[in-house]
Amino acid sequence: MSMTEAIPSPVKLSAVAAPGQPEPTPALEQLYRGFEQEMLVPLWTQIGDLMPAHPSSKAADHLWRWDHLLKLADEAGRIVPVGRGGERRAIALANPALGGRPFATPTLWAAIQYLMPGEDAPEHRHTQHAFRFVVEGEGVWTVVNGDSVRMSRGDFLPQGGWNWHAHHNAASEPMAWIDGLDIPFAYYGESQFFEHGRLHLDPHERATPRHSRSERLWAHPGLRPVAHLEEAPVTPLLAYRWVDTDRALNEQLALEAEGYAATVSPGHAAVRYTNPTNGRDVLPTIRCEMHRVKSGASTRPKREVGSAVFQVFDGQGTVAVGEKQWQVRRGDLFVVPSWQSFTARCDAGQVPLDLFRFADTPIFEAVHAYRCQPG
Amino acid sequence: MSMTEAIPSPVKLSAVAAPGQPEPTPALEQLYRGFEQEMLVPLWTQIGDLMPAHPSSKAADHLWRWDHLLKLADEAGRIVPVGRGGERRAIALANPALGGRPFATPTLWAAIQYLMPGEDAPEHRHTQHAFRFVVEGEGVWTVVNGDSVRMSRGDFLPQGGWNWHAHHNAASEPMAWIDGLDIPFAYYGESQFFEHGRLHLDPHERATPRHSRSERLWAHPGLRPVAHLEEAPVTPLLAYRWVDTDRALNEQLALEAEGYAATVSPGHAAVRYTNPTNGRDVLPTIRCEMHRVKSGASTRPKREVGSAVFQVFDGQGTVAVGEKQWQVRRGDLFVVPSWQSFTARCDAGQVPLDLFRFADTPIFEAVHAYRCQPG
Amino acid sequence: MSMTEAIPSPVKLSAVAAPGQPEPTPALEQLYRGFEQEMLVPLWTQIGDLMPAHPSSKAADHLWRWDHLLKLADEAGRIVPVGRGGERRAIALANPALGGRPFATPTLWAAIQYLMPGEDAPEHRHTQHAFRFVVEGEGVWTVVNGDSVRMSRGDFLPQGGWNWHAHHNAASEPMAWIDGLDIPFAYYGESQFFEHGRLHLDPHERATPRHSRSERLWAHPGLRPVAHLEEAPVTPLLAYRWVDTDRALNEQLALEAEGYAATVSPGHAAVRYTNPTNGRDVLPTIRCEMHRVKSGASTRPKREVGSAVFQVFDGQGTVAVGEKQWQVRRGDLFVVPSWQSFTARCDAGQVPLDLFRFADTPIFEAVHAYRCQPG
Amino acid sequence: MSMTEAIPSPVKLSAVAAPGQPEPTPALEQLYRGFEQEMLVPLWTQIGDLMPAHPSSKAADHLWRWDHLLKLADEAGRIVPVGRGGERRAIALANPALGGRPFATPTLWAAIQYLMPGEDAPEHRHTQHAFRFVVEGEGVWTVVNGDSVRMSRGDFLPQGGWNWHAHHNAASEPMAWIDGLDIPFAYYGESQFFEHGRLHLDPHERATPRHSRSERLWAHPGLRPVAHLEEAPVTPLLAYRWVDTDRALNEQLALEAEGYAATVSPGHAAVRYTNPTNGRDVLPTIRCEMHRVKSGASTRPKREVGSAVFQVFDGQGTVAVGEKQWQVRRGDLFVVPSWQSFTARCDAGQVPLDLFRFADTPIFEAVHAYRCQPG
Repeated sequence: MSMTEAIPSPVKLSAVAAPGQPEPTPALEQLYRGFEQEMLVPLWTQIGDLMPAHPSSKAADHLWRWDHLLKLADEAGRIVPVGRGGERRAIALANPALGGRPFATPTLWAAIQYLMPGEDAPEHRHTQHAFRFVVEGEGVWTVVNGDSVRMSRGDFLPQGGWNWHAHHNAASEPMAWIDGLDIPFAYYGESQFFEHGRLHLDPHERATPRHSRSERLWAHPGLRPVAHLEEAPVTPLLAYRWVDTDRALNEQLALEAEGYAATVSPGHAAVRYTNPTNGRDVLPTIRCEMHRVKSGASTRPKREVGSAVFQVFDGQGTVAVGEKQWQVRRGDLFVVPSWQSFTARCDAGQVPLDLFRFADTPIFEAVHAYRCQPG
Repeated sequence: MSMTEAIPSPVKLSAVAAPGQPEPTPALEQLYRGFEQEMLVPLWTQIGDLMPAHPSSKAADHLWRWDHLLKLADEAGRIVPVGRGGERRAIALANPALGGRPFATPTLWAAIQYLMPGEDAPEHRHTQHAFRFVVEGEGVWTVVNGDSVRMSRGDFLPQGGWNWHAHHNAASEPMAWIDGLDIPFAYYGESQFFEHGRLHLDPHERATPRHSRSERLWAHPGLRPVAHLEEAPVTPLLAYRWVDTDRALNEQLALEAEGYAATVSPGHAAVRYTNPTNGRDVLPTIRCEMHRVKSGASTRPKREVGSAVFQVFDGQGTVAVGEKQWQVRRGDLFVVPSWQSFTARCDAGQVPLDLFRFADTPIFEAVHAYRCQPG
Repeated sequence: MSMTEAIPSPVKLSAVAAPGQPEPTPALEQLYRGFEQEMLVPLWTQIGDLMPAHPSSKAADHLWRWDHLLKLADEAGRIVPVGRGGERRAIALANPALGGRPFATPTLWAAIQYLMPGEDAPEHRHTQHAFRFVVEGEGVWTVVNGDSVRMSRGDFLPQGGWNWHAHHNAASEPMAWIDGLDIPFAYYGESQFFEHGRLHLDPHERATPRHSRSERLWAHPGLRPVAHLEEAPVTPLLAYRWVDTDRALNEQLALEAEGYAATVSPGHAAVRYTNPTNGRDVLPTIRCEMHRVKSGASTRPKREVGSAVFQVFDGQGTVAVGEKQWQVRRGDLFVVPSWQSFTARCDAGQVPLDLFRFADTPIFEAVHAYRCQPG
Repeated sequence: MSMTEAIPSPVKLSAVAAPGQPEPTPALEQLYRGFEQEMLVPLWTQIGDLMPAHPSSKAADHLWRWDHLLKLADEAGRIVPVGRGGERRAIALANPALGGRPFATPTLWAAIQYLMPGEDAPEHRHTQHAFRFVVEGEGVWTVVNGDSVRMSRGDFLPQGGWNWHAHHNAASEPMAWIDGLDIPFAYYGESQFFEHGRLHLDPHERATPRHSRSERLWAHPGLRPVAHLEEAPVTPLLAYRWVDTDRALNEQLALEAEGYAATVSPGHAAVRYTNPTNGRDVLPTIRCEMHRVKSGASTRPKREVGSAVFQVFDGQGTVAVGEKQWQVRRGDLFVVPSWQSFTARCDAGQVPLDLFRFADTPIFEAVHAYRCQPG
C-alpha cells in the first residue's frame, strides 16, 4: 500500500486580481494552498488557455528550407552511422514553439531521412503509422514484410503501423526523402508499441524490382483481388507512383479547361491518396494529398481544425499561413497549425506549383471534432 | 514577408557516449549546432522516449480522497463566486506527473463541481464532450438547450459537445458532483471552440421536472421515436438513472448465479452507457461504464491502451493500479494510466463495490490504435 | 454432359400492332419463333410491365377482419393438430392478387397462429426472420434457444433467423397472435435454410418467468452489458413490452402538447422497435413500429417503396390505402402495397387508434432503392 | 368505402392424406372452404415449398450459345427498329424454369443488346442498376449524363440507377454486347422508377473520345479527386478497361508462380470490379467479377446463396453447374441458380479460360442472408 503524499506537488496557484477571477484574499490564498497539496487546479484559473473561443495553436507556422536540411543530412551521412539503437538516420523538424521536441506539429512528425550507398536501415516495426515521400532522387528500396518497394521522385509510400520494415540503398549515390508519422499523437495519447527485427535483410530481399508485389496485386484502378476482400484500416498498396499522380492532376486541369467540375477551385487540382479497400484515407491518422496550382492561380483560403505539413514538390510560388508569407521552392517544408488560414499561389508564367500535404484530419473526423471554414 | 531566423532556437542537443548513439566528436557537436539552428532534432537522440516497446505513461497512478476534495470544494463554495469568466466552480484533478496542469490523464479532465443553494452556473457551450456523474446529493438541474435534467445520486448525465448548458441549484443544500471532459485531448489536438450564452436562465427553464424531455423521448428500452431516426454521434438521452443502472447490474449477477453468461467475469458485472441511435459509446471520445464487484470477488487484471479515471460509487475494497494498491471508499477518485494493469477487489462480507469508470478508449478505437491484454 | 433442347420452351411471343412495337410481319413472327426456341424474350414486348414509371404493385390493398380470422383459427384449433411436419398452426394471409400464395405482400408473410391449452409447437429454426405480436390474450411462452419469453397483449417479440424456437401454452385458454416473417422475400431470392429441432422442450424450459433472460440483460434504456459488446445484425432483446411502448407513445403526445417536436405529425406518435446493439431495425429485413393516432387526428398521407402490413391494436378509425378506405377495429389486418398512398384517421371522441405496422423497408434501404413521398 | 368480398378467391386448398398433414375429413374440407373465402392459406400445406432445408432453386441451370444469340440479334437488327417505346434492341435470357419471363435468374436480367451502324438508342433513366460487358466488337459509345464512354472488347461499364443514358453506334459495323440488370429483383420487390429522356443526343455528345470524363477523373489507382470525396453507393467510374483487368489477372498468376498468395486457388485468378469511393461492389445489387482459370486448372467447387450469370470471355473449358456440365467457348452464357455447386475447368494446353461473372450477392450480404460453402 503506497500513498502519494511524499511527492512535492507540481501544482502552483496564485490568487490574482483579474476579470472573472475570485477576489485575491488571504482566504483564497489558503484555499489555493489546499488545492496544491491535494493536486487540484480550479477551472477558473485555466479556462482561457484550455477553452479558447477557437483553436489558438501552441505550434508556430514555420518554414524549413530544403537546401539547409539536405546539407545537414548529407553531413550526418558522413559522420553518423545507421544501425540498431538509433535505427534511422532521420532528422526531424522541431516546431519552434513546441519546446524543442521533434514535433513538426502537435500530432505530426516530419523528418528527412538519408541513406548512403550500400547502407541498410535495420528492420523494426512500430504501431505509429508512417509514410515516405520522395522529392528527389532514387535508389533506395523499402522492404515491408519482405516486399521490396522502389522509391523514386514523386512516389508516395504509405506504411501502416506494426509492419516490419527496413530500407537499403542499392545505388551509388546517397538518397534523401521525407518520413511522416503520427509519433506526437501516439506520444501524447500513449498508445505506442515498438519491436526490433533483423539487423540485415536476406539476400533475396535485396531485390530491386520495378514494382512491388503490393502494386502488382493492388494498383489496378477499381479492381480488387478476390483473394483479398476484407476491409483493411490501412491501405494494402505500398506505393503510389508519380506517373499516376501526375496524370490524375493533369486530367483534372484539362477537364476544368473543358468546362467540367473536376478541380477544388479554378486552377487548383488535388488528389487524395486512398485505401482501395474502403476508399478512405491511406492511414487511419494521416491524410495525404498532392495539390497542383497552375500558373497564376491560387488556392481558396481555408482554415481547418488540426495541423498539416507541406512539402513543395515542384514549381515555385508564395504560400501564406496565418499572418506569415513565404516564397517557396522545391523541397521546402512548412507547417500550418490548427485553425490558421492557408493559401498558396503559383507565380504567373511558372510551371505549376505542386504541393505534397499531410495532415492529422482523420483523427478529428473519427471523433466528430473536425471543422473547417473559408479562410 | 516574415522569416523565423530571429527566434532563439528551443532545440538543445548534446553529443553523448551511449549505446546506439554516434561517437561524440567535435564534428558531431558541430552538426548538432547546425541542427539546433535549423530547428531539427535527430531521431537517434529521442527514440527511447518516443518509441518505447510499449506505452510507458508520463502520467502517475494517483488517488484523490473524496473527503479531502469535498472539504476544499465546500470551502471554495463559500469564498469563490460562480459567474461569467470563471464559468464554473469546478476543481480539477491534476495528475502529479503532468506538470501541474489540470489533467487527470493525458486526455481526460475530471473535476469536482460545487453549487451553492440558489446559485446558477452561467450558460455556455464548447466542443469538448462532457458528462456529470453524481456520487451523492441532489437538488441541481442541468439545463441543456432548455431541457432541465435532474441530477441525483447515481445518475449519469452525458452531454455532447456544442450544446448550450447551465446549472442551477434548486435545493436548500450545496451539491457536488464530478464532471468528466476530453479537455486535454482537445487541448493537445487544438480542436476546441467555446461560446458564452446567457447569464441567466428564463424562469420557465428553472423548472425541476423529475424527467427531462430527453428522457421522455428516449429512455424506453429498444424504442426510438420515429420523428428522430437519424444517427447521432452523441447520445440524445441526457440522463441515465441509477434505478436502471442498479437493476441491470443486479440482473447480471442474478443471471450468473443461475448459470448464464452475463457478467464480465465471476462476480464482476458491468454496463456501458450507450447512445441509443447507434449502440455505441455515449460520447465520441469518452467511454463511460458502471462496474459492480460482489463481495469477495475481483475483476480480472487487464491492461489497455489509453487512460481511465474511476470514482468509487459505493462499497469499499482494494484497487491495484500497476505497482500501487489503495483501500478505497465512496467518492474516492483514481487514475489508471495507459498500459498499467488494473484490478479491483471487493472485501468479503461487504456490500458490492460499485465503480464508475470513464476512459478515452473510443479515440484509440476510432483510429485503430486500441490494444488490451490480460493483466 | 446434358443439353437442354428437350425442354418445351415456356416462352410464348406474339407480334402485335402497338405503339413502340415492331411491325407484326411474317419475318417478325419467324424471329419470335427463334427467340422462343432459344429461350429469349425481347425487352420491347415487356418494358411496360417490367419498367413502369413508378411501382405499380401486383399486390392488392386488402383487409382481413380479425373476428373472421379468429373464428377460423379457433376451428382449426379443434381439428388440426400441431406437430412435426406441419410445425405450426399458422394460417397465413393470402393477398388476393398474388395468385393464391400465402403472401400478404410480395415480400412479407403474416399469419395468425393459434395454440390450445397445454399444446407445444415443436422446436425448429430457419433463416427467415420472424416476430410475434400479441393483439390480445396471454399464456403462451416462446422458448428461444432455451430462453422462455412470455407473450401478453401488446408485446412484440422479434426473433432473428437461425435461432431455435418452440412455443408452449401454459394457460387454460387457447391463445392467438400474429407471426410476421420475410418468407416471400426469402422464397423469391432463394436464400432459405431450415432445420428441425427437438419435439419436446425440457421440463425446465417450460418455466413461465415474467421476464426472459434476454430482457434481464438488455431491457435497460441505453445500458449495454459489457460482456456482450459486439454489434449483432439482429436484436438480442427478445421482448418489447407493452408497458414501455405505451408509455413512450403517451410521452410523445404529451411533449407535443407542451410544444416540443416529438411526434411524426400533429396527433400522430410513433416508435420504432430497434436493435440496442446498433440502433437500427430489430430485424435486417423487417421494420416494425407502433403508431398512435389521437382522437380526431390523421397521419399525413405518404407513399413508399416497399410494402407494409398493419394490425389494429386498439381503438377504431378509418384507414385509406390507395383508392380504398376501411373502417377498422381491434385486430383487423390490412396491407399497403408498394407506392400506394396510406393514411389513417382516428374518429373524434374515441380512444386513440393504435396501429402495429411491419414493412420490408430495410431491404430497400440496404440496397439504396428506398424512396418515399408525401401521399 | 369498398370491400373486397366480390373478388373470387384465388386460394384453392384441398385436404390430402400425407405425413405432417391433418386428417382429410369433411370438417377439414369445410375449414379449408372458410380459409379460401377469407383469403387464407395454412402453413402446414405449404411448408415444404416455402421452408426447404436449403435453397432449392425454381430456376434451371441453363446455357445459351453465343452464336445462336448473335444470329438472332443480327436478324432483329435488320427487322426491329430501335426507338422510343421499345427503347432498346435488347433480347433477354429467359430461364426455362421461370415461366417464360425474361429473367435469367430470380433476381437478374441478362440480355444481348444490338445496335446497327449509325443507330441511336434513345435516352432514358431507371432505378434498376445496370452494366454493359463487351465480349467482342467496338464502335458504340454509351452516353451517361452527357459523358461519352467507349465500349470495346473486354470493357466493363457499370451504370448505377437513375442516371440518364443513351447509346450510339459510331462505327460502320453492328455491335453486340450484354446488359446485366437487377430488373427481376426490382420487379418482385416493386421498387422501380423509369423516365424517358431526349430522343436524340446533342451533336457534341456524339463525340467518340478514347476515355470518358469519368475515367479521366477516377481511373487512377488509389487516387481520389479532392473535389469529389463523398461516398457514393454506386461507382463513379463508368468504364473498367480490359487492359487493366487483363494485367491484374496476369499479375495474380505470376505472383502465385513466384510463391505468393494472390489467387483464389491454384491456377484460378479473379478480380472484383469495385467502387473507388468505398471499395465495395460497383453496384448495390450486383457483384461483377472476371475470373481466369489457367490451362489444366479448375476452380474449387462452391455453392452460394443467390444466383449468378456467367459469360465466357475467352478460352474454352468445361463448366459444371449442379448435375449439369457444358463444354463452353467464347460468348456462351449460363446461369448458376442459388445453392447449386459450380466449378470451371480450363482444358489443358489451351489459352486460359476467362469468365465474366455477375451475381446478386450484395443483396443477401446487405440483409445478412448470405451463406456459402465448399461445393
